Amino acid sequence: MAASAPISKSIYIGPFVHSKSLSELEIQEHGAIGVDEDGIIRFVERNLQDGSLSNLIQQKGDDWTDAQIVEINGSGFFFPGFIDTHVHAPQHPNTGLFGKTTLLDWLQKYTFPMESSFKNVPLAHRVYQNFVSRTLSHGTTTAAYFATIHVPATNALADICLKRGQRALVGRVCMNSDLSPEYYRDESVESSYADSKASIDYIRSIDPKGEIVKPIITPRFAPSCTTDCLSAMGRLAKETDAHVQTHISENKGEIELVNELFPESKSYTDVYETHGLLTDKTILAHAVHLSDEERKLILERKSKISHCPASNTAITSGCAPIRSLLDEGHTIGLGTDVSGGNSPSILENVRQAIWVSRHLCIQTSSDAVKLSTEEALYLATRGGAAVVGMEDKVGGFEVGKEWDAQMISLGVVSEEGCQDGAFEEGPVDVFGWESWSDKVEKWVYSGDDRNTTAVWVKGRLVHATSRYPGTRRAATP
Amino acid sequence: MAASAPISKSIYIGPFVHSKSLSELEIQEHGAIGVDEDGIIRFVERNLQDGSLSNLIQQKGDDWTDAQIVEINGSGFFFPGFIDTHVHAPQHPNTGLFGKTTLLDWLQKYTFPMESSFKNVPLAHRVYQNFVSRTLSHGTTTAAYFATIHVPATNALADICLKRGQRALVGRVCMNSDLSPEYYRDESVESSYADSKASIDYIRSIDPKGEIVKPIITPRFAPSCTTDCLSAMGRLAKETDAHVQTHISENKGEIELVNELFPESKSYTDVYETHGLLTDKTILAHAVHLSDEERKLILERKSKISHCPASNTAITSGCAPIRSLLDEGHTIGLGTDVSGGNSPSILENVRQAIWVSRHLCIQTSSDAVKLSTEEALYLATRGGAAVVGMEDKVGGFEVGKEWDAQMISLGVVSEEGCQDGAFEEGPVDVFGWESWSDKVEKWVYSGDDRNTTAVWVKGRLVHATSRYPGTRRAATP
Repeated sequence: MAASAPISKSIYIGPFVHSKSLSELEIQEHGAIGVDEDGIIRFVERNLQDGSLSNLIQQKGDDWTDAQIVEINGSGFFFPGFIDTHVHAPQHPNTGLFGKTTLLDWLQKYTFPMESSFKNVPLAHRVYQNFVSRTLSHGTTTAAYFATIHVPATNALADICLKRGQRALVGRVCMNSDLSPEYYRDESVESSYADSKASIDYIRSIDPKGEIVKPIITPRFAPSCTTDCLSAMGRLAKETDAHVQTHISENKGEIELVNELFPESKSYTDVYETHGLLTDKTILAHAVHLSDEERKLILERKSKISHCPASNTAITSGCAPIRSLLDEGHTIGLGTDVSGGNSPSILENVRQAIWVSRHLCIQTSSDAVKLSTEEALYLATRGGAAVVGMEDKVGGFEVGKEWDAQMISLGVVSEEGCQDGAFEEGPVDVFGWESWSDKVEKWVYSGDDRNTTAVWVKGRLVHATSRYPGTRRAATP
Repeated sequence: MAASAPISKSIYIGPFVHSKSLSELEIQEHGAIGVDEDGIIRFVERNLQDGSLSNLIQQKGDDWTDAQIVEINGSGFFFPGFIDTHVHAPQHPNTGLFGKTTLLDWLQKYTFPMESSFKNVPLAHRVYQNFVSRTLSHGTTTAAYFATIHVPATNALADICLKRGQRALVGRVCMNSDLSPEYYRDESVESSYADSKASIDYIRSIDPKGEIVKPIITPRFAPSCTTDCLSAMGRLAKETDAHVQTHISENKGEIELVNELFPESKSYTDVYETHGLLTDKTILAHAVHLSDEERKLILERKSKISHCPASNTAITSGCAPIRSLLDEGHTIGLGTDVSGGNSPSILENVRQAIWVSRHLCIQTSSDAVKLSTEEALYLATRGGAAVVGMEDKVGGFEVGKEWDAQMISLGVVSEEGCQDGAFEEGPVDVFGWESWSDKVEKWVYSGDDRNTTAVWVKGRLVHATSRYPGTRRAATP
């Protein structure tokens, strides 16, 4: 499964599901999608009937006669790969550890001690191998990773993503203020700049076209950086034309802290604006408590928002008003925010996004704030693609896009009812009378990584469970 | 695994974890718990050192020389079985289907059509076999089940629970008002009474001592029953001394409906009070929007509360104020409320109870409303045991209690980091440096049914995955 190995021309046969628009899913029961040796979708057939594969191949021409066939067995469908727009890879070993903390004390108690240990490169390698495996197993085909302040460990994460074939924006974390403990911060503005630049250069050297991995400038969040340091990152963003990621307006105590630390700024958003960090390639994680002016400014700058519902609930940050941000035209994706979030699964965050919007509804007594299933799935795919600047490449199944996809398989209940111990096929039970939209809802509301039986990035198989049926040749149907 | 087969005397060796009090877990790393042929705990050793098993057996006497040994392999612990205090078994095929509904339209659109199909006994058998397998796989050793209005299907559920060895309160649903569609309601007050009585008699005939299955009188909720019907159920409760379960104060529209339908009652709670249904054996599900007077009355009557956090979020019912109900002295357990709730897992509802309490904190800006991990685990075990009237039998590991337990196994990350596809051991990654309380937290916040590798009820193995290590004899360590 190495990202450098050649891949075969393939036809993916079976139902497929993707977002047609923010509020609508397209569900095609009899699909056939042709993907070439570069991982590019060359055709999308919506109505392949039984026995018509040979007709289809004839119609498509000689190129497709030796294509490999990947077919959905039983109950399932192809779905676009998930995009995790905000995730801290080094915090993976802390997943589920919160104690009684909220953001600022959680950072000191759990996060900084863990991240500082990534000075040890073998340790970093162990955790990152494990975590990239995990996120791939959950169908995450693209992730915007925060690493740590360490250049070697950050570069190791990029190496692993490239080798495993997971699209990634990989960011060395920049933090030099005394909010961070002395044992874990950049030594100076100069070293912040130099280390960030070194990591950008390395990542661009291993994947010059940025097809799989790209660098991203990562000032942790305003309170972690001095004003000089933020300016240096803004300069670096301009010089390198790189993506930028940071946190914004997650927690009320944090906002007060920003106001104290940056008295000359009009708002938290204005801190990033005035330091050249509010670009159309900037990903702002959380955005829970933004003022109207901040929302306007972010929209004007075309910066993107990563909504992290599980994290916002787990560390009691608040309920981001996603429905109204969408109405205003913001570009929004989902982020797991491991380990503020307790799950590396975007599917779990699809559910959590819906739950958070229902809690907003409970608070405000307004049904208008609720996200639908369709909307949450859009955020997880096309929304996320736009957040990472790949909306023309991934997020849905159209000719010219790349094949970043997952095979979803659902468990089918026998006439006798599944028996004890037989649940290896995962948590979804299909009885046979369900409509297609019911099956998709069942997956959304009860599925997990067991239902993701195979994952492809740019046409390459990057994860498969024992239930993946494998391929056959078109000539031997 | 039939509930009638004899069981061996057993010693369970390894770490064990259970609630010491509402706010405190006991974690013993070197435990040994002896369970006799009746499934009763005979000794609990807290400090078994390596090699001292033979000393222990010598000390306990001849009876234990041929005991079978069940030992935790790798990283894991024994934990009390979960108690699901509110769950609708026939709604299992609807799990995850909500559309855009809330309580009252959800009942009409999804619930009543599904439940009415349980007139078909083979269908009921298929769904109930599947669902009991599911709940056992999630470590649920006791469940308070709502069935449907049909006596044969209800009795089939009791048969399945008895055969599979899952403790259950099984209730034929009683509903005769025109809130329910004509195709799915009791024909008359007389048939409501007679059918409920018939199911009670049947369930008591198959398990006369009520060791595994017991009947429970189940008026669906006040709006589903006429006042005569509620009175008949109150009379039946008195005549049979059976448990009672129903819903209360879930959703604001529902409360208004109750006020309209029962204008002579002072409150929703008063409806049950005046019809003889508010007893110390009554389980009230939801209790989201109770007034102070209602809370007082429930406390006086010693009725119990089932908190269903996943359901209350999923169908936007509200956030039950569990922290303050606990402070007032209420007896509270957790309920999955499938399929209002989207998961048959009490572990998921432990998380959801914590999330709901954090959303209450977000709403009220009061930290005092937050449930801790320890408190949520207490609700899932000892709290639930008290709700179903089994606090002297199950919920924790003490001499004289019965062995209702689960073996929790956690995944251990290799030095190279787990590789692709190797996640059959479940979603928890242990790196080796975690404290014991960290391991428990990791399980709580990221575990699932894969981590529940074996489940026992009353000393009998009722579920095991392929990772369950099995038993050996004491004589051959």
